[in-house]
Amino acid sequence: MEHQDNPQEFLRIIAAVHARGWATGTGGNFSRVLTREPLRLQMAPSGLDKGRLTADTLITVDAGGQVVTGSGKASAETLLHLALVEAAGAGAVLHSHSVFGTVLSQHFAAAGAVTFSGYEMQKGLAGITTHDSTVHLPILPNTQDMQVASDTVRQHLASGRTFPYGLLLAGHGLYAWGGDLFSANRHLEILEFLLEVTYRTLILAQR
Amino acid sequence: MEHQDNPQEFLRIIAAVHARGWATGTGGNFSRVLTREPLRLQMAPSGLDKGRLTADTLITVDAGGQVVTGSGKASAETLLHLALVEAAGAGAVLHSHSVFGTVLSQHFAAAGAVTFSGYEMQKGLAGITTHDSTVHLPILPNTQDMQVASDTVRQHLASGRTFPYGLLLAGHGLYAWGGDLFSANRHLEILEFLLEVTYRTLILAQR
Amino acid sequence: MEHQDNPQEFLRIIAAVHARGWATGTGGNFSRVLTREPLRLQMAPSGLDKGRLTADTLITVDAGGQVVTGSGKASAETLLHLALVEAAGAGAVLHSHSVFGTVLSQHFAAAGAVTFSGYEMQKGLAGITTHDSTVHLPILPNTQDMQVASDTVRQHLASGRTFPYGLLLAGHGLYAWGGDLFSANRHLEILEFLLEVTYRTLILAQR
Amino acid sequence: MEHQDNPQEFLRIIAAVHARGWATGTGGNFSRVLTREPLRLQMAPSGLDKGRLTADTLITVDAGGQVVTGSGKASAETLLHLALVEAAGAGAVLHSHSVFGTVLSQHFAAAGAVTFSGYEMQKGLAGITTHDSTVHLPILPNTQDMQVASDTVRQHLASGRTFPYGLLLAGHGLYAWGGDLFSANRHLEILEFLLEVTYRTLILAQR
Repeated sequence: MEHQDNPQEFLRIIAAVHARGWATGTGGNFSRVLTREPLRLQMAPSGLDKGRLTADTLITVDAGGQVVTGSGKASAETLLHLALVEAAGAGAVLHSHSVFGTVLSQHFAAAGAVTFSGYEMQKGLAGITTHDSTVHLPILPNTQDMQVASDTVRQHLASGRTFPYGLLLAGHGLYAWGGDLFSANRHLEILEFLLEVTYRTLILAQR
Repeated sequence: MEHQDNPQEFLRIIAAVHARGWATGTGGNFSRVLTREPLRLQMAPSGLDKGRLTADTLITVDAGGQVVTGSGKASAETLLHLALVEAAGAGAVLHSHSVFGTVLSQHFAAAGAVTFSGYEMQKGLAGITTHDSTVHLPILPNTQDMQVASDTVRQHLASGRTFPYGLLLAGHGLYAWGGDLFSANRHLEILEFLLEVTYRTLILAQR
Repeated sequence: MEHQDNPQEFLRIIAAVHARGWATGTGGNFSRVLTREPLRLQMAPSGLDKGRLTADTLITVDAGGQVVTGSGKASAETLLHLALVEAAGAGAVLHSHSVFGTVLSQHFAAAGAVTFSGYEMQKGLAGITTHDSTVHLPILPNTQDMQVASDTVRQHLASGRTFPYGLLLAGHGLYAWGGDLFSANRHLEILEFLLEVTYRTLILAQR
Repeated sequence: MEHQDNPQEFLRIIAAVHARGWATGTGGNFSRVLTREPLRLQMAPSGLDKGRLTADTLITVDAGGQVVTGSGKASAETLLHLALVEAAGAGAVLHSHSVFGTVLSQHFAAAGAVTFSGYEMQKGLAGITTHDSTVHLPILPNTQDMQVASDTVRQHLASGRTFPYGLLLAGHGLYAWGGDLFSANRHLEILEFLLEVTYRTLILAQR
């Protein structure tokens, strides 16, 4: 478990996500809740190489997405992090740009979800106790208007008919979250694994 | 060769399996026999990140799957490890969740096995002396009832008509084992190699 | 940002490009502008393993491509680096030999470009502000006559109808550049990402 | 360049080959010429994990394949190394077990070669000066009789109608060599790159 006043585990996870090729080209963004009252998120700033972050580059933002400590610039996608922290109860949010997530988010955009079924790995997602379950990872449309994106995510979560720990933005990538940083990272790894398995199974099914 | 009172080689192998992407999301589990009389297995505990284990997180379990030393929780799959240690004579058991193992375990589930033939790599499996041999890696159905899974594995081994160092659980992953930790790891690496070769050959054969 | 008198960031980026498998077999070449008046490029010399460079192996070349400091030999492709530095205003040029870049540079050679559209990652390319844009990464014919190659690149840039930060040579690889080393590296990573996404999408579209 | 009395570069290259996944499961074998008169090869011994070799595990063998220094066992494939050192003038021989090499060595076994044409990377092979050339990487049948294998390789080399720095054994893997260790490693990396490019191009051509 991470300590709220020590960002080493947060930095280690970001570096590991980058090392897997899921946050190249300064892509990806990452947050964890420091306090709820008032709401404070620690985030990696926008525009930096995610393989090279240090503690002094991290920033803190408030419930309005404004930087309250640190000298970096908040990502435009901070509103999405806030939506997930407020409306989904996330304690940490990890956003990756992976090849398989990007490809499948376009391939299944019209269907609105990627569906996983029959995989033991699903059990690593909080609340799922058997491979004999079905997970619909939703795909929402991409937009450059982050207020629209945030509203779409909040409406989606309010519908209550959704997988509670991840979503794809079409052509963009995966958001994964959890009650704490450790769970968010586990969910990220599992969803990326299931996306690669799904892609490779589709290719094989062409046979 | 590992020393039974020194877990460094065991920890190194688990970390290497994780680094290859075969145990993400806290997936995978791993054991080695410490003593036979009474039976004691050293295991990685359930629910931890397999890329970050240290000696003090390891646990010891007895023949009933109960934790006798260490503070972690034994994996639900401990019964499978015990079945392989008791009925197959395994000195170490390594269970991976790889992409190619998962995909092929579903693709060939109805056939009940993945078949390897003509590969030099087969010679790295104990008892095989030529590429001109055929290995049937069995696929057993997945279940959340570990007593059922354990019984299925024991019956499978008792049939005597099977590859003696590995099996797949459908949609779940690979179990590889050997007389000692070094052999178990060699078998794991070879079977994962042959699974990837088989997948890529199937894709090419679509041509 | 890199300091012009300190090559550590330049060396780190070359090593990272090599570690990703984009500069194997002594392939790839790399330059950054030290001074504009007179023009001096720092480069990795030809024929060395790009995973093993040290500061004392780097060379400096002038506007004619002649080595002015250092004992190594300049790559035959130095003329292309000079063309990009002079005609495209590049502050750094990174040339990779990746598998996906090589495959697609042949596959789309007749079309003359690989086209990216609808990907959030496009926003990491300088001057692009939305995924709802289209990037045509040009493919120029390969040649061993570097004067011809350099002239082709200069004519291509002069046409003004092109993506300003990258090009492919057919069967050869990717040139990516930017105003400084950091931007050049970001462009390289993004273009390589988009090439892999494009390849994997084409394969899936066969379905 | 390596010093003949210092195996560090040899060990580093073997570890790098292992790290790329080309020598898993104790697979692969590696040699370099220490002296020609009398002929002495330094080799990695059989049956060890190629990611974990140290200087004191290396062995020296003579022209008859007998171990003259060191306590390890020579690989059964030592006769092939000797054939390449004697009949092809190799100063170092690197034998990898890669996924793409294995798949293509079976796919093109009947054709007897994998053919590369039009790739800039071909220029990294000694004696080739343009991408506008064609390389036929021969595929010889696999066998467990190493005297037969060695004779086949010698006859193949004596035919004079072959690519001089590499060959595939069907279902087995790649042998790459060169005048010295540095060249052998460059050839290995380039041939493995071209094998992956060829595989991925074939898959795309299914479209």
